[in-house]
Amino acid sequence: MSDNVDTLIEELREEAERDRPTEDTPEIGIVMGSDSDLDVMAGSESGRPGAYDALTEKLGFAEQTSYEDPPEARFTFETFVVSAHRTPELMYAYAETAEQRGLDVIIAGAGGKSADLPNMTASIAYPLPVIGVPVQEKSVDSVIGMPQGAPLTAVDAGKSFNAALSAVQYLARQHDELRDRLVEYHEGLQDGVGEVSRDLHELGTPAFKQRDE
Amino acid sequence: MSDNVDTLIEELREEAERDRPTEDTPEIGIVMGSDSDLDVMAGSESGRPGAYDALTEKLGFAEQTSYEDPPEARFTFETFVVSAHRTPELMYAYAETAEQRGLDVIIAGAGGKSADLPNMTASIAYPLPVIGVPVQEKSVDSVIGMPQGAPLTAVDAGKSFNAALSAVQYLARQHDELRDRLVEYHEGLQDGVGEVSRDLHELGTPAFKQRDE
Amino acid sequence: MSDNVDTLIEELREEAERDRPTEDTPEIGIVMGSDSDLDVMAGSESGRPGAYDALTEKLGFAEQTSYEDPPEARFTFETFVVSAHRTPELMYAYAETAEQRGLDVIIAGAGGKSADLPNMTASIAYPLPVIGVPVQEKSVDSVIGMPQGAPLTAVDAGKSFNAALSAVQYLARQHDELRDRLVEYHEGLQDGVGEVSRDLHELGTPAFKQRDE
Amino acid sequence: MSDNVDTLIEELREEAERDRPTEDTPEIGIVMGSDSDLDVMAGSESGRPGAYDALTEKLGFAEQTSYEDPPEARFTFETFVVSAHRTPELMYAYAETAEQRGLDVIIAGAGGKSADLPNMTASIAYPLPVIGVPVQEKSVDSVIGMPQGAPLTAVDAGKSFNAALSAVQYLARQHDELRDRLVEYHEGLQDGVGEVSRDLHELGTPAFKQRDE
Amino acid sequence: MSDNVDTLIEELREEAERDRPTEDTPEIGIVMGSDSDLDVMAGSESGRPGAYDALTEKLGFAEQTSYEDPPEARFTFETFVVSAHRTPELMYAYAETAEQRGLDVIIAGAGGKSADLPNMTASIAYPLPVIGVPVQEKSVDSVIGMPQGAPLTAVDAGKSFNAALSAVQYLARQHDELRDRLVEYHEGLQDGVGEVSRDLHELGTPAFKQRDE
Amino acid sequence: MSDNVDTLIEELREEAERDRPTEDTPEIGIVMGSDSDLDVMAGSESGRPGAYDALTEKLGFAEQTSYEDPPEARFTFETFVVSAHRTPELMYAYAETAEQRGLDVIIAGAGGKSADLPNMTASIAYPLPVIGVPVQEKSVDSVIGMPQGAPLTAVDAGKSFNAALSAVQYLARQHDELRDRLVEYHEGLQDGVGEVSRDLHELGTPAFKQRDE
Amino acid sequence: MSDNVDTLIEELREEAERDRPTEDTPEIGIVMGSDSDLDVMAGSESGRPGAYDALTEKLGFAEQTSYEDPPEARFTFETFVVSAHRTPELMYAYAETAEQRGLDVIIAGAGGKSADLPNMTASIAYPLPVIGVPVQEKSVDSVIGMPQGAPLTAVDAGKSFNAALSAVQYLARQHDELRDRLVEYHEGLQDGVGEVSRDLHELGTPAFKQRDE
Amino acid sequence: MSDNVDTLIEELREEAERDRPTEDTPEIGIVMGSDSDLDVMAGSESGRPGAYDALTEKLGFAEQTSYEDPPEARFTFETFVVSAHRTPELMYAYAETAEQRGLDVIIAGAGGKSADLPNMTASIAYPLPVIGVPVQEKSVDSVIGMPQGAPLTAVDAGKSFNAALSAVQYLARQHDELRDRLVEYHEGLQDGVGEVSRDLHELGTPAFKQRDE
Repeated sequence: MSDNVDTLIEELREEAERDRPTEDTPEIGIVMGSDSDLDVMAGSESGRPGAYDALTEKLGFAEQTSYEDPPEARFTFETFVVSAHRTPELMYAYAETAEQRGLDVIIAGAGGKSADLPNMTASIAYPLPVIGVPVQEKSVDSVIGMPQGAPLTAVDAGKSFNAALSAVQYLARQHDELRDRLVEYHEGLQDGVGEVSRDLHELGTPAFKQRDE
Repeated sequence: MSDNVDTLIEELREEAERDRPTEDTPEIGIVMGSDSDLDVMAGSESGRPGAYDALTEKLGFAEQTSYEDPPEARFTFETFVVSAHRTPELMYAYAETAEQRGLDVIIAGAGGKSADLPNMTASIAYPLPVIGVPVQEKSVDSVIGMPQGAPLTAVDAGKSFNAALSAVQYLARQHDELRDRLVEYHEGLQDGVGEVSRDLHELGTPAFKQRDE
Repeated sequence: MSDNVDTLIEELREEAERDRPTEDTPEIGIVMGSDSDLDVMAGSESGRPGAYDALTEKLGFAEQTSYEDPPEARFTFETFVVSAHRTPELMYAYAETAEQRGLDVIIAGAGGKSADLPNMTASIAYPLPVIGVPVQEKSVDSVIGMPQGAPLTAVDAGKSFNAALSAVQYLARQHDELRDRLVEYHEGLQDGVGEVSRDLHELGTPAFKQRDE
Repeated sequence: MSDNVDTLIEELREEAERDRPTEDTPEIGIVMGSDSDLDVMAGSESGRPGAYDALTEKLGFAEQTSYEDPPEARFTFETFVVSAHRTPELMYAYAETAEQRGLDVIIAGAGGKSADLPNMTASIAYPLPVIGVPVQEKSVDSVIGMPQGAPLTAVDAGKSFNAALSAVQYLARQHDELRDRLVEYHEGLQDGVGEVSRDLHELGTPAFKQRDE
Repeated sequence: MSDNVDTLIEELREEAERDRPTEDTPEIGIVMGSDSDLDVMAGSESGRPGAYDALTEKLGFAEQTSYEDPPEARFTFETFVVSAHRTPELMYAYAETAEQRGLDVIIAGAGGKSADLPNMTASIAYPLPVIGVPVQEKSVDSVIGMPQGAPLTAVDAGKSFNAALSAVQYLARQHDELRDRLVEYHEGLQDGVGEVSRDLHELGTPAFKQRDE
Repeated sequence: MSDNVDTLIEELREEAERDRPTEDTPEIGIVMGSDSDLDVMAGSESGRPGAYDALTEKLGFAEQTSYEDPPEARFTFETFVVSAHRTPELMYAYAETAEQRGLDVIIAGAGGKSADLPNMTASIAYPLPVIGVPVQEKSVDSVIGMPQGAPLTAVDAGKSFNAALSAVQYLARQHDELRDRLVEYHEGLQDGVGEVSRDLHELGTPAFKQRDE
Repeated sequence: MSDNVDTLIEELREEAERDRPTEDTPEIGIVMGSDSDLDVMAGSESGRPGAYDALTEKLGFAEQTSYEDPPEARFTFETFVVSAHRTPELMYAYAETAEQRGLDVIIAGAGGKSADLPNMTASIAYPLPVIGVPVQEKSVDSVIGMPQGAPLTAVDAGKSFNAALSAVQYLARQHDELRDRLVEYHEGLQDGVGEVSRDLHELGTPAFKQRDE
Repeated sequence: MSDNVDTLIEELREEAERDRPTEDTPEIGIVMGSDSDLDVMAGSESGRPGAYDALTEKLGFAEQTSYEDPPEARFTFETFVVSAHRTPELMYAYAETAEQRGLDVIIAGAGGKSADLPNMTASIAYPLPVIGVPVQEKSVDSVIGMPQGAPLTAVDAGKSFNAALSAVQYLARQHDELRDRLVEYHEGLQDGVGEVSRDLHELGTPAFKQRDE
């Protein structure tokens, strides 16, 4: 195994041994099979928004980048690249230590037809819940098809944004503050639809289109 | 719920209470799940023509944009954005008031794999007929797959133009004027095919192609 | 061409020449590509109910089997086998005479991957509306995929029952009596769901299951 | 609307108004589009086990069948039939009252290609989390394909057993007792695999097969 | 019906009545559903070659553009646009007169999911053989799926070039001259593969690639 | 290579050397990848009819089973099992000698996803025309997908009956006798549809169904 | 983790430490995700033959069931059940020790849409080669879709028989004895085809069929 | 047949007759159906790397371009274009002589839906092992679907890079040097993942993205 991978694994195991207060550990872990999945898993300016955007912009989470120096925000998440097929040991260590490191839910995304990362992570991190994100359309079957006794739930291809909303829906059962943020986000969403609907109806199709150009 | 959506719902319910003459209310209601569906549902200059184009350019309908001030044209339609998953209350109100607001048929389009708007609209607006338009190829299954007892008919992905023709075919059973417009439109269509066929045959393939360049 | 087909075509053309009162002609024409489609198009005791069942049992229509001796019921339908690929002349004659013979809407079903009957019938019977019924799952694409300018709407594979409901939804825009029958049918349907839902909830799953055995 | 449905809706709204202690309300709500989905959603003796089996046999939940007389078990669930396309008002009332009636998570299953119940329930019950169960393989796309901003997570076709495990994984973040039950269930599962693996290896293929006959 | 279409139909019927020597009538008829299919059916400079290219460049056929003034070449073909769904009467007339007008085989192409032109042409022109060309990948099922008793053979999506080769293979059973042309074309094709294979092997991959740039 | 295969190959090559009159050699060769394909390729009593049935019962062909002793019938066919993947040398020899052995057209069927027999036979037997029969639905793509320059036409999955009709359509361009048989067969087919259509219409659906029981 | 699994893992690690002569260790390891895969992976009397049948009946291998007491046959294989999703630790230990325990190639089969066992085994056992067997048609994509850098080759759904042949093809590059057995098996296979082909041709279709009944 | 092809075939047969030392003959043969497959089979700068890149850059192989003058490298491969459908004789000769010419494994790639080259090569070159590379997604079924008794293993569409790794995995069972190269390549791969994972985690998503721009 490579040195880079070895060190990462060691650090994960050390962090699992530590006893940090819940407020300091990330609630959500985001893992993906390759950094080429980052645009889908985090969101991109040219493409559609992702889990990073949902958590930071809509729901007030902060990304935790150092175990020693957690962000001030009460709710946080962490982000890792973990390849099931290239670094199975790293995947194993990540999932095995997840609960002890304080995570409450994992969002795991992978592309390709053999998108095994979400499934294996769910199997190893059990009983921690995992939400699978098929990074490509062709990854849906591989992510969703878990056998009986091996729980995992999935969102549609590429929709890490929704995976983040779902993860926070579960956290919100314990944290009213998160429930409020979810409701506020939703009202903004509905407001947008309401406004567009009125405009289209009252301006009529050609004027509405012209306005958008 | 958002204020914008609340007001819209109220207005729909008020309009349903009013007793306007048939001539003043739209015959056809066009709804879509998002304004990003507008190019497919109305038609676009760069893409293919849609329901708006069929109704206005080919069949003499006008778009009604104000309940107070209906267009002079005898036959009209209205256009709304209504999201099944983001604004279920608005969808409910739209479909529930449709018949009372004078509509005879609804054309409902939605994209994505969970294209529920046409189906839910048909279920709530019943017994008003609804023609579903799958906005994307992947929406076809979701739109067409209604269970027994819940009627809806569908056109092919993206073909809101044909949905408009079908809607008018039904209206034409009561209105000879509309039947005449349908026949006239059709003759023009056939004329075009006849001309192209003769040209291709008589010019031969290379000359026909050159002409088109 | 065969004598049997020739005579049928002649009779259709003669009927088209006659001038019968609207009350005596069928409102709905049901055609299918083969008598092996009859279980799907009409309904069967071992399988699911179809258009025949919907029209006769739920909505009070009668089947018209003789031009000379129409049923007493106000609303009627007729049933024919018409193969696009084996008897194209018969299909042509059926569709061409449909409007003149008093039909208001055609329900056309066909199986296989080249399910052309609904589409060709719609093209020839235009501007009469046609509802296509894909008799098999693999017929859906062929039935729904009409090009721009050639209207047809379709129901899901095998759901001629819903096609009949849809056809009557359109007729009901002119006939309040039919609207009432549609509403009455629907209330019965909802009543059934309500009863089952209460029973399942109040008995609990095991007792509910046992009761059904 | 039917009387049966009306009464059910009223009862749901009344229950939502009541203020019952958390211990007395069900944590999990199971809804399905038709009682023909019950074998998949609850589990069946001839087919594979389902959510009912997972919750009662593996994880110690009891089914709550009366609001007045909740079971003694600390953790409970309720079961309803709710059809999106036949009883949209009932679906609306169920989802809208879910959070107020004390539910923490809903497991919603539907079959067919227009499997809209899980999606609409999630949209209306928001911010309550919903796990969708496609009752048939052809229902997967419709269930999983939610648009951005409308969260829902799904399991594989027919796997309501896993949906129950996933639901309890989330509840277990707050209830250590449930976490213990999940771990215990899992150890039994692993034990079974270990035993079979040893037997197959040590007996050899023919003897292992013979033993099973 | 449109005048353009009427006149075309009349001319086809007149030509069918005439008694022209076999040498003067086209052996092969090429029809397509729309002139937008021409690039696929004839071949295009930017895309891949088609039936026109195969017949004229590879096999010495000429295109016949006037009944009065056939080309000098012994073997000829004609090209028409015939829409099954927009001009069913024209399609009918074309297919019905095909054998009498001297054709030996028809190559019929259509796009979309309801690609009915090849099938209907085969059904009407029977016993004249028809080779169907699905113009798009999604047209394959509709073209190939003929029911028992209604013969048609098909090539792969877009491969009108191969359809022309197949048509000439049949004609070559009667005309040794055509057989020789087929063999000569084939040797050229093989020569190309042989040369490329040797070059790749002897130059090695990088040098071969560089040469091609 | 096996002795059985060696001897067969030798016999095929010897027959190719002989100079038999056209009347004595089979016009059509039927080959299939395995004798498990025989029910599809020849037809079966429990399943649907096949090429053997079409040729012998409908079109007056006889099967030729001995080179020395051909049947008296003017038109004949032969039947072989030839596996592309198990006996590539036999396939090669069969296809390479086909034209010299007097065949005019080959009907080649194969099942599975790698249904290479029709394609390879067409490539080797060139310029002899080959009609491919995908024995299973999953064989369609492999059979139809020939690259440019390698002609083959295909029928739908399992429809060897139609392949036989198509083969005879081509032979009928040279043999009026075969054209007459094709027309006669077709009239019988149409007669059947005409009779069923009249019966269904005049008896009405229930009586028609009852009669069939 | 369960005791059964723990002990198995320990034994695998112990065996890996031992230094047994090559002749005593199995060349091929067969693993499958569940004992319900055994009919596909080993072969069954009612279904088709599998890897067990190919190795023992056709190629002279013996199954090794005890580390202490290996079979006398020079070439052997072992069989285990290893579930990626239920016992990830066991899978890890199996794959990690495979090369040290003397295996030269692993045949790994799994069913379902998330058939991760072959892929994860290949990733962990690297650089030992792994042949994946999708146990069901729907497992093919998940098995074959490995990302760049993570080698695995696959056979068609359910064809563990062929996986065994492929595995032995590789071993045969070092062991002439195995090459001879492969050739002998193949000649028998070809002999069967040759015999059937001759019989079908010489008996004719009806007599051949009758003989088989 | 063409001269170019004839000469190539002759040379292959001559080479097969020669008795060259193992060190001088290529271990791996790479064949593809067309030089348009070269970017996939060898790798391209704009697309993804392929078998050529894996063998030369990662694993120290050299390409052998002349039988007379083999490269100095101990392990080599050769590259040919061989079309199953355009040059079946060349394919036959290539596969038939492969083992005698010293090859240990063949990597065969083909595109299109009738991707027969890998399958036919495997059938003819037997008992030499063949790894099939579907050049396009639509080629997967045709390549993987071999019938029982005809072994071939396949990689995912377009992944000739992995096919090369797999081929070398088998060679590495005999050559420790190759095993070492595989391990070294793998460590580099893992190192890359480890580095990216640490960077993403420690920089956080926005900084990581910025760095990459």
